[in-house]
Amino acid sequence: MARTDGRGDDALREIRLTRGYQDWPAGSVLVEFGRTRVLCAASVQQSVPRWRAGSGLGWVTAEYAMLPSATNTRGSRESVKGRIGGRTHEISRLIGRSLRACIDLAALGENTITLDCDVIQADGGTRTAAITGAYVALADAITYLGAAKRLSDPKPLSCSIAAVSVGVVDGRVRLDLPYEEDSRAEVDMNVVATDHGTLVEVQGTGEGATFPRSTMDTMLDFAQEGCAQLTRMQADALAEPYPGELPGSKS
Amino acid sequence: MARTDGRGDDALREIRLTRGYQDWPAGSVLVEFGRTRVLCAASVQQSVPRWRAGSGLGWVTAEYAMLPSATNTRGSRESVKGRIGGRTHEISRLIGRSLRACIDLAALGENTITLDCDVIQADGGTRTAAITGAYVALADAITYLGAAKRLSDPKPLSCSIAAVSVGVVDGRVRLDLPYEEDSRAEVDMNVVATDHGTLVEVQGTGEGATFPRSTMDTMLDFAQEGCAQLTRMQADALAEPYPGELPGSKS
Amino acid sequence: MARTDGRGDDALREIRLTRGYQDWPAGSVLVEFGRTRVLCAASVQQSVPRWRAGSGLGWVTAEYAMLPSATNTRGSRESVKGRIGGRTHEISRLIGRSLRACIDLAALGENTITLDCDVIQADGGTRTAAITGAYVALADAITYLGAAKRLSDPKPLSCSIAAVSVGVVDGRVRLDLPYEEDSRAEVDMNVVATDHGTLVEVQGTGEGATFPRSTMDTMLDFAQEGCAQLTRMQADALAEPYPGELPGSKS
Amino acid sequence: MARTDGRGDDALREIRLTRGYQDWPAGSVLVEFGRTRVLCAASVQQSVPRWRAGSGLGWVTAEYAMLPSATNTRGSRESVKGRIGGRTHEISRLIGRSLRACIDLAALGENTITLDCDVIQADGGTRTAAITGAYVALADAITYLGAAKRLSDPKPLSCSIAAVSVGVVDGRVRLDLPYEEDSRAEVDMNVVATDHGTLVEVQGTGEGATFPRSTMDTMLDFAQEGCAQLTRMQADALAEPYPGELPGSKS
Amino acid sequence: MARTDGRGDDALREIRLTRGYQDWPAGSVLVEFGRTRVLCAASVQQSVPRWRAGSGLGWVTAEYAMLPSATNTRGSRESVKGRIGGRTHEISRLIGRSLRACIDLAALGENTITLDCDVIQADGGTRTAAITGAYVALADAITYLGAAKRLSDPKPLSCSIAAVSVGVVDGRVRLDLPYEEDSRAEVDMNVVATDHGTLVEVQGTGEGATFPRSTMDTMLDFAQEGCAQLTRMQADALAEPYPGELPGSKS
Amino acid sequence: MARTDGRGDDALREIRLTRGYQDWPAGSVLVEFGRTRVLCAASVQQSVPRWRAGSGLGWVTAEYAMLPSATNTRGSRESVKGRIGGRTHEISRLIGRSLRACIDLAALGENTITLDCDVIQADGGTRTAAITGAYVALADAITYLGAAKRLSDPKPLSCSIAAVSVGVVDGRVRLDLPYEEDSRAEVDMNVVATDHGTLVEVQGTGEGATFPRSTMDTMLDFAQEGCAQLTRMQADALAEPYPGELPGSKS
Repeated sequence: MARTDGRGDDALREIRLTRGYQDWPAGSVLVEFGRTRVLCAASVQQSVPRWRAGSGLGWVTAEYAMLPSATNTRGSRESVKGRIGGRTHEISRLIGRSLRACIDLAALGENTITLDCDVIQADGGTRTAAITGAYVALADAITYLGAAKRLSDPKPLSCSIAAVSVGVVDGRVRLDLPYEEDSRAEVDMNVVATDHGTLVEVQGTGEGATFPRSTMDTMLDFAQEGCAQLTRMQADALAEPYPGELPGSKS
Repeated sequence: MARTDGRGDDALREIRLTRGYQDWPAGSVLVEFGRTRVLCAASVQQSVPRWRAGSGLGWVTAEYAMLPSATNTRGSRESVKGRIGGRTHEISRLIGRSLRACIDLAALGENTITLDCDVIQADGGTRTAAITGAYVALADAITYLGAAKRLSDPKPLSCSIAAVSVGVVDGRVRLDLPYEEDSRAEVDMNVVATDHGTLVEVQGTGEGATFPRSTMDTMLDFAQEGCAQLTRMQADALAEPYPGELPGSKS
Repeated sequence: MARTDGRGDDALREIRLTRGYQDWPAGSVLVEFGRTRVLCAASVQQSVPRWRAGSGLGWVTAEYAMLPSATNTRGSRESVKGRIGGRTHEISRLIGRSLRACIDLAALGENTITLDCDVIQADGGTRTAAITGAYVALADAITYLGAAKRLSDPKPLSCSIAAVSVGVVDGRVRLDLPYEEDSRAEVDMNVVATDHGTLVEVQGTGEGATFPRSTMDTMLDFAQEGCAQLTRMQADALAEPYPGELPGSKS
Repeated sequence: MARTDGRGDDALREIRLTRGYQDWPAGSVLVEFGRTRVLCAASVQQSVPRWRAGSGLGWVTAEYAMLPSATNTRGSRESVKGRIGGRTHEISRLIGRSLRACIDLAALGENTITLDCDVIQADGGTRTAAITGAYVALADAITYLGAAKRLSDPKPLSCSIAAVSVGVVDGRVRLDLPYEEDSRAEVDMNVVATDHGTLVEVQGTGEGATFPRSTMDTMLDFAQEGCAQLTRMQADALAEPYPGELPGSKS
Repeated sequence: MARTDGRGDDALREIRLTRGYQDWPAGSVLVEFGRTRVLCAASVQQSVPRWRAGSGLGWVTAEYAMLPSATNTRGSRESVKGRIGGRTHEISRLIGRSLRACIDLAALGENTITLDCDVIQADGGTRTAAITGAYVALADAITYLGAAKRLSDPKPLSCSIAAVSVGVVDGRVRLDLPYEEDSRAEVDMNVVATDHGTLVEVQGTGEGATFPRSTMDTMLDFAQEGCAQLTRMQADALAEPYPGELPGSKS
Repeated sequence: MARTDGRGDDALREIRLTRGYQDWPAGSVLVEFGRTRVLCAASVQQSVPRWRAGSGLGWVTAEYAMLPSATNTRGSRESVKGRIGGRTHEISRLIGRSLRACIDLAALGENTITLDCDVIQADGGTRTAAITGAYVALADAITYLGAAKRLSDPKPLSCSIAAVSVGVVDGRVRLDLPYEEDSRAEVDMNVVATDHGTLVEVQGTGEGATFPRSTMDTMLDFAQEGCAQLTRMQADALAEPYPGELPGSKS
């Protein structure tokens, strides 16, 4: 059975990375995985949370959210509900943890980088798109901090980070699921990997089904190859000069 | 003393209205007043809040919010703080009230239109840009509802709505203040008007200063002329065919 | 068509200002506009919010609330709901902003004055009554601080502040609307003015109707004359000696 | 050692009960125990909470609160803090429970009476003053409901309710403590009693001290005599005709 | 009419006190009154709340909660509801106040002891069981602090504390009510007493009934005798050596 | 390098499953993995959440929490903080999702089973212990529902569920980490599996380190073998007759 959009089972959707999308943050990237669009902004602050003040270490944290208008049926605002839901918490924590895997917090110095990942349009895979975009925004923010001589060590990034979803749909392992596939997947997995091919996070869930070890192994194969492709696209995007005016005047 | 961007005191910034910015909502407009960018989405729902069920009347409401990365210094998320601030409440109410002035709720029938105004980038005048963009999104949503035969009466819009800010800066009345002017304005006023030239809302505030009636009168003159120009731009934008696929498959 | 209470269109209701209503605050005024009764208390604190500590500047802020029993139909408590509504926020901010227009915060020194405006009984115009009463409470608090030698400069008040509502009812511009008129007004406006005749705030709203510039102009005329009368009553009230024991033992 | 205000150890402060203090609620009483002033309003609603709908029984509940300006040092608003404190909860529950002891909820019919007890000025004993005043407001609300033919049975009140504080100060048992005594009392007790001399609630607490059974017995003697006096004052107040216009037009 | 479990009207249920129930807290006691089981943990912290820092005084506070599965019908979690109910607040305050009656906070030094009383299974009398168990946990925590040389004075406990419920059921005064009796009691009273026979707290409530002074007197007699028995059981339990490993490695 | 407790790298801690720990819930199991103790209660309710009423399907959900006294340093209560943290949300969702994998919700009929997993003592691996214990509580609740003839189909459980943690500590893959190992693990993974050997959830995280595919594979091997052992212990526990009185009187 073919995929609705005609892709091969192990093919990514069309990926776009637009740097410099906003003027104020040190890094600001619009990442698109097909119709999924996430705005990833890296804001820097010359201080760290109280619990690590004076340690000489920096901090990287993330906040994920979805615009009410991003989904097919309008979602309600978590600010209006007065509390952040479990899913939002889980994804924010995943993004922060994943990006901290590539950075030497001592080299960062006592700076905090907040990665805001706001979903402009959702069509499956928003959390993995967010991680992939957030890495590019983080890299731009590091460049900005380096130019401003605010790093303790000039090379805080030890690797690059990319992420992709994989699942079992119609009994077949498939890469990078859009909403139409994700909503009926039997198994759903998110994989975060580095440019060295090592793993950062693996989160696989049977959705009303359980899965044998062999399926697990194939899903990991697909996801690792998908991450390798995303890693190359990130490197290509970052090889371009920074678009528009440099974020050099920011505090 | 000239304005930083060289504009005349009564001139608007460059205005852009991009329809069809998102795929799912019935109307979705990115409005830009210079560097200020607000995403205005009109989502429709085939029901009304409980307190007006069975009345035959529809409802139009608005929610305004700012991305943390929209401002020069990162703002904290209201969902994380667990409560919506006074300013957000005030602006959401203003937008909803302003847009309800142009619509016949009986003609709308028992549908609810929610206008989500999310500020992507802030550079002054976000609330008036939001109102101006929300009108265009509302108009598209009404067209969508009409095509779907879901209106009680085919013409629920009685007028169009536009809004602009005006203030006193450096002792001079000036139209459409960017953040740099807004932050040091002595008087700040927001005016919402219709295409008939009548007023919907006038909110003028002395910021640490009070102002004579004559200044009030000049500010109203500038704002009414600015709204007239915005009204023409809205009409021009809406005269174009709807970009991309029609939002006809939405529930 | 005559008004229910027989007043002229440009006449105020019966106004009363009772100073020294409570024993503990530095200023405490019960203000009555007809049946509308608001208790305005000015409490002083020998410190400022953290964000302005060390600046040498004082702070004036306001909190507005309504007793559940103040309205015809009992209202629910915002403390019980666990959040402050948009209307309450909006009015609290309006009162604070309006009163800050008359005070030199450097002359106040690092003191905070909190203006609590609690509506005992509501019959329209509670926010403008609150502003009018809060000015008198503020003036008493300043006298108290002066007597206690706690001001940086002896005359921090640069003007007096009064406020009134005005609207369009039955097609006629009318001053100082009671609830019965307010609830069916086509246009509703609140005006805050100084004893110099200048304006501090103008907030006009079409309630399901829009209004021409000429109506705006007449409403401003009525409101400015109403504020001038209120200013004289405030001055008369403050010319009396402080009733009861002086609040001199307060911390 | 004599009391600051010269009273005998077993004497009440000056008590005042002002009925009809507000225009809208079915009962509205300002009760004063010396400088302690509490506004007790009884609002009626022609329905009951969901959990007792259809039972034929009515409901009586209470909400206690303190104005920020009621205390010597300004208190913060619970609506602003976003949660009701333990003390407020405890007192609201005590008032509701105490007043339910005098009413036959079947005779009340499916009506809810909410007793709002808002402290205008606090000088010790606010909860017992609130109970004493709330009984009078409740009695007026019952009269109102009876006149409106909305009771299931014409006499729902089986007794009257009064309350007073008693404590040990300077080693002596004393009745009706003002704040100056209350704040340094070794033992503090609140007693709620009926006009039949029976007890409804007894809440005695050692404040950093424990107390022998003999002290407990004397405190009960004083409190029961104090309640008997308050009961007579309530009866006298209710024997007067209702002041001002009858609350007959309320919904 | 005999009691369901055959006890005499003035007899306690079977009482058990299991020390060292948990490994980490300085004191941890499982207290059982029949089927009612409460886990009382005393955790120590080498600091005091901000409002008493530098005073040289320690602090003792308590938090009471019930597992959702502790009651016959599952209760909802207060963490999920986002607010603590009135009953929980009331009981937490009662426990803290009661235990502070037996300790010299100056002798405790600037340490905080938090008494967590978590109800594992509820069958009436959870608050009085909690107080009785919390005293034993507190005593163990004091021993631990003394061994660690962290007390300002070696004997901070001036007495022991026990508590029991008493009520009127089927017209008879009865001690230590299980849920089946408690739920239909006409009068309900909780008494906290010391090993010297003095009283700490007396909270008696008519549940839809009022009660004469003579009943009050009998209830106090029963409760004081019950507390005397509990005091002996506490002393016996504390006379045993500490079970398992000493909590000596805790911070 | 040997493990602190002398276990082999692939060995479980001592496991205990105590059924019938509480009297009221339909299933109640105390599960112990070494010093980690979690109370798992399965409460049944004869209805489903509103969003699935009338579907004929049942629902299984879980709530995880930790007693403040469960951890080495006292944790603060989420009910007191007024919001549930991200970690709690994440674990509650994981438990619910895992247990839903073994149950046919149509066979369950319109009943809700809530799995409360309250950590009494924490020493690493609380979430996997919770899942393992919750399965046994769920099985008892199903037996109870079957005996009460409240199931749509007599065999709703399609498999059994067990879970265990695995990680990389000191460069070695190790099973079932206690807190001392968990807190310094380089990689941490939780695996949920069925008695058929298939996988339900795999959540692996590099903690400041990334890991090669080969480590992933070894971790899966260890975890699958650990789950197989836990599955046998669950079966043994459930083969015993239900201890104490049957929960047959519950509503």
